[in-house]
Formats: sequence, structure tokens, C-alpha cells
Amino acid sequence: MNFLDELKNLKEQVKSENKLNIDFDFDNIVISGMGGSGIIGSIFQEFYSEKPVIPISDYGIPSFVNDKTLFIAVSFSGNTEETLNNVSEAKEKNAHIIAITSGGKLAEEVEDHIIIPAGMQPRSALGNMLMPLLNTFIKPGEESINSTYEALDSMDRDHSEMKAEAFKIYGNSYIPVIYGSRPFKSVAYRWKTQFNENAKTFAFYSYFPELNHNDTMPLKSAYRRDEYIFYVFESDNNRINRRIAVTQEITGEQFNIVHTPVTDPVAKLFYLIHYADYITYELALIRNVDPTDVSTIEELKKKLS
Amino acid sequence: MNFLDELKNLKEQVKSENKLNIDFDFDNIVISGMGGSGIIGSIFQEFYSEKPVIPISDYGIPSFVNDKTLFIAVSFSGNTEETLNNVSEAKEKNAHIIAITSGGKLAEEVEDHIIIPAGMQPRSALGNMLMPLLNTFIKPGEESINSTYEALDSMDRDHSEMKAEAFKIYGNSYIPVIYGSRPFKSVAYRWKTQFNENAKTFAFYSYFPELNHNDTMPLKSAYRRDEYIFYVFESDNNRINRRIAVTQEITGEQFNIVHTPVTDPVAKLFYLIHYADYITYELALIRNVDPTDVSTIEELKKKLS
Repeated sequence: MNFLDELKNLKEQVKSENKLNIDFDFDNIVISGMGGSGIIGSIFQEFYSEKPVIPISDYGIPSFVNDKTLFIAVSFSGNTEETLNNVSEAKEKNAHIIAITSGGKLAEEVEDHIIIPAGMQPRSALGNMLMPLLNTFIKPGEESINSTYEALDSMDRDHSEMKAEAFKIYGNSYIPVIYGSRPFKSVAYRWKTQFNENAKTFAFYSYFPELNHNDTMPLKSAYRRDEYIFYVFESDNNRINRRIAVTQEITGEQFNIVHTPVTDPVAKLFYLIHYADYITYELALIRNVDPTDVSTIEELKKKLS
Repeated sequence: MNFLDELKNLKEQVKSENKLNIDFDFDNIVISGMGGSGIIGSIFQEFYSEKPVIPISDYGIPSFVNDKTLFIAVSFSGNTEETLNNVSEAKEKNAHIIAITSGGKLAEEVEDHIIIPAGMQPRSALGNMLMPLLNTFIKPGEESINSTYEALDSMDRDHSEMKAEAFKIYGNSYIPVIYGSRPFKSVAYRWKTQFNENAKTFAFYSYFPELNHNDTMPLKSAYRRDEYIFYVFESDNNRINRRIAVTQEITGEQFNIVHTPVTDPVAKLFYLIHYADYITYELALIRNVDPTDVSTIEELKKKLS
């Protein structure tokens, strides 16, 4: 698959019917993963809070992990150092461990695993890694999945809007700053990482209402204000939309509001994710960098091993 | 107190003997707070993990909150909209609620509260808000507190190093990017917010090892690389220090490594926090902006209310 095919594969991934096989009681969920695999835990945490969910993108597991913990290890390659380290620690604590991976050592280490297709960039497998969690705990209905599929398919047929954004960013050497809000705070982080990995640009993120307690100051009076482009997700919550409007009003910033033409939360989630897939893909092409190239990260892993 | 007196007050704050009064069982801890009060939950989460700790800097509490939840509301003013909203929700779920505040509606709403001194900026009361949690769950010993006091006092007597950093930032109109690592990831966020509120500059943060999965790419090949200054906390963990060194080596970035001349974890925590207090204070003076001024945030609150 070339990278564009990988992006277009997302709409098929949301149809995945993979589920976790849970035949035990648990008090809490710990999800360990890094980068493009780690985002799964952060997204899930915003959609499910019937039990405490602790996402970890780091070495080391919390002390509370025990035999009442559902420990989910997500690693596309199955060879992520930090995640394998944490699986060893979780085993010692007798946690119930389930892995989501395309193979590697993780599939060997964890008997109870869901194998997802290899042959693409980890960050292009977001749907394959996330759906098992959503299918198990959120159970999106057929309508929700159809709406998601159609939103993604429509974007795959025409992403001229995102291409225009990429030209705007490149033409001004803008640094993107993405402001999310519940339940899409981690999607703002996903945008950041897609800018980093696909387009090789810096990008930063925060979220409403927290940013009103700090970022609001430099939005009005920082130096280098004009070098940033602000993408702000439209919210379903009126309190948040009011904050967005008032923040613009008093700081004079021109936010780029990202509208979502769908209402279903799962469809919104994937729409927002896919939007950045396309901006960052197009920005890479305009910058003449290979969107699939993560050689610096690979070089680092090699030197560390 | 002027702002410099506020900063110097931190060393007295670490001597606070305030403690939470806990005479009930609980399964998990939820800590609700925004901005300079919200950081308390994030810092605490990195120091304590015997039970799941969920910090919230947002409207809304997780569904799992019930009568086995210790719900800690932190608001310096006691009038933070988001936090008061969450206290109402936590009451409906019969959570055990304890407030840390200087007064306001929160002190009226929550019977079980710890009153901290008013008369300073919320962000200058970090020690007063954090120590009750550390005293209850971490129990730093006399040596630890003495070491912390001495580290802060020494900085209060001479902060020329931080002043030089402020001049470097101003002279180049640098945007600071702070890279933390466990257990000081949230301290990197604190640096960011101090740059925002005191110096009115943009600032961004991330942490090792997560950033090796995304930021590593732009560190090598982004545009505007030279406009950023990178502060990286030296770690006690060799794997992290090795990552820092290799990341520098392969990206060609010159990180500003922040060394901590103390060994005790609590002393390190406050040393790192205080370091940014001084850089951002000095940067405000050099930029000729009032470090105490958060009028834009106040204006926003007024318009929203």
C-alpha cells in the first residue's frame, strides 16, 4: 500500500468487529502504548469512564495494578521497548493482560491477543487498534458505523479543503496549534503527532477550558503570534463554544474553526482524525518530504537497542 | 506581597503541615482543578499510584465516581466555574469530597476543607495547595523538607543563572519548549503555564520517552527550528538520559539540560518548579510586562459569567 491507500484504509478499519474477550472481573483499566499506538488509550479514556482508565505512554506501571486490573498493551509492531517493559511488570502483578498488535514479541509474550493487519505505518492503523476497545465497551451501532464510513469515504473522494489548509500552512511557514475539547482532547494530540511524523513540522496542542487559564495570555500579547495557525474543534457543548468565541473576541486571534458535518460521536471522532491525516499528507507533499519516512525515529531506536 | 515576595514564599509553603482528614475507605482518587490549581492533581499523580488517581482540568467528572471515591477539589479562589460544577456532580454521586482553597463558594459548598492563605496569585500558592496531598500520602520526612527548603532558599538568594536564561530567550525571541520525564512531566507543563501567565509568551511541552515517537522528526527537519529553545530536565533514569543524549546526537539539537543539584525527589520537584518561577519572572521584567497581570483571563471570566 502507498501512504494514500493507507489513509483511505481507515474507513474499512472502522468496520472491524474485533472484540476483547473478557471473562473476568476487573476494577480498573490500564492501557500501555507509545506514540501512534499510545493514542488509543487516551482516546478510549475520553469515551469510557465507567471504571478508572489510566493510559500510559511511558516506562513503568502504577503501583495499584493487581489481579483486578485489565491491562491492555497496544503496540502496532509488537516490539515497542516501553510497552514490552510494562507487560513484564504487569505480569508480575498478575494483571489480566490483553495485547493488540500486528505480531512481534508482544504477540509471543501475551497469549490473549488480537492480531491486526501489518503492512502499513503504525499511525495508519488507528482504526484497527481502537475498534476492539470501542466494540467491547462502547458498542457503536450499525448507524454509527455507517455514518462514520460515509464521512470518511466522502473525505477520501474530495479532500480539497484540507489541501487548501496545507497550502496556507506552507505558504506562511505556520506552526499549527490545535485546541481540542472533550471528548476530542486526544484528537488534538493526534493532529500534533501527524504533523510531526507526516509533515515533519512542529505542532502543539491544548484544550478548552484548561487553556483559558494560561494560553489566553500569550494569545493576546506574545511575540511571534503571527507565526502560528490555530485550529479549534467546534464543540457540541455550548459552554465550550462560548469560551471559544469569547477567547477570539478578547485576544483578537482568528481561530480556524474545524466544523464536523456529522452528529454521531464515533463519526465525529474519525472525521476529526481523518481531517488531519489529509492536511499533514498534503503538507508533506508540498514540502517535498516523504510522509512515510520516520527514519530519524528508526535511527534512534537502533542506537538505543 | 509583591510578586517576588510571592515567589520567595514557596520555601515557607513546603513546611505546611496541613493534611487531609481521611476516616473512610476509598478505591480511587479524583482531583479536580484548573490551571495553577489543576497542576496539583497532575503532580500528585506522578508521586502516588497506590490507587488510581484521575486528575481533571475540565467540566465533568467520570461515570465511575461513587461513594468509594475520594474527590479532591482544588481551587485557589474557591470560585472556579469548572471546579464548582464538578463538586456538584460529585455530591450527586455521594463521593467523599475534600476542598483545598483560600475560601470562596468552594469553602461554603464543601464542609470538609483546608483553608490556605489568600493574598497572592493562585500560581504562587502551589506549595500550599500541594503539601496537604504530599503530607497525607507521601509523608516527606524532615530531611526531605529541609533539603527542599535549602534548595529554594539558595535560589532565592541567587537566581542569576535563571536571569541569564531569560535574557537568552528575550534576545532571540525564542519560544520555550520544555521536555520533562517521570515524575516531573507535569512540572514541564508548569513551566509552560508560568511562561504563559508571567511572561505572556507562548511555550510548549512534552516528555521523554513519548516525544521520541513523534517530536523527534521535526527536531531534525522542521522549518523554524531555530526559533525554539529546548529545556530538558536531566533524569535519574539512565534509559531516559540515554534517550536525551541520542536524540540530541541524531537531530543536531542543542538541548539546554536542566540539572538539579539535589537528590531528594520532593526537593527536586520544587527546585525544578522554582527554576521556572525565576526565568519567567525575569523574562516578564525584561519584556516590560507585569508578571502578576492576568487581566485577559479575568476579562474572559467576566464575559463568561
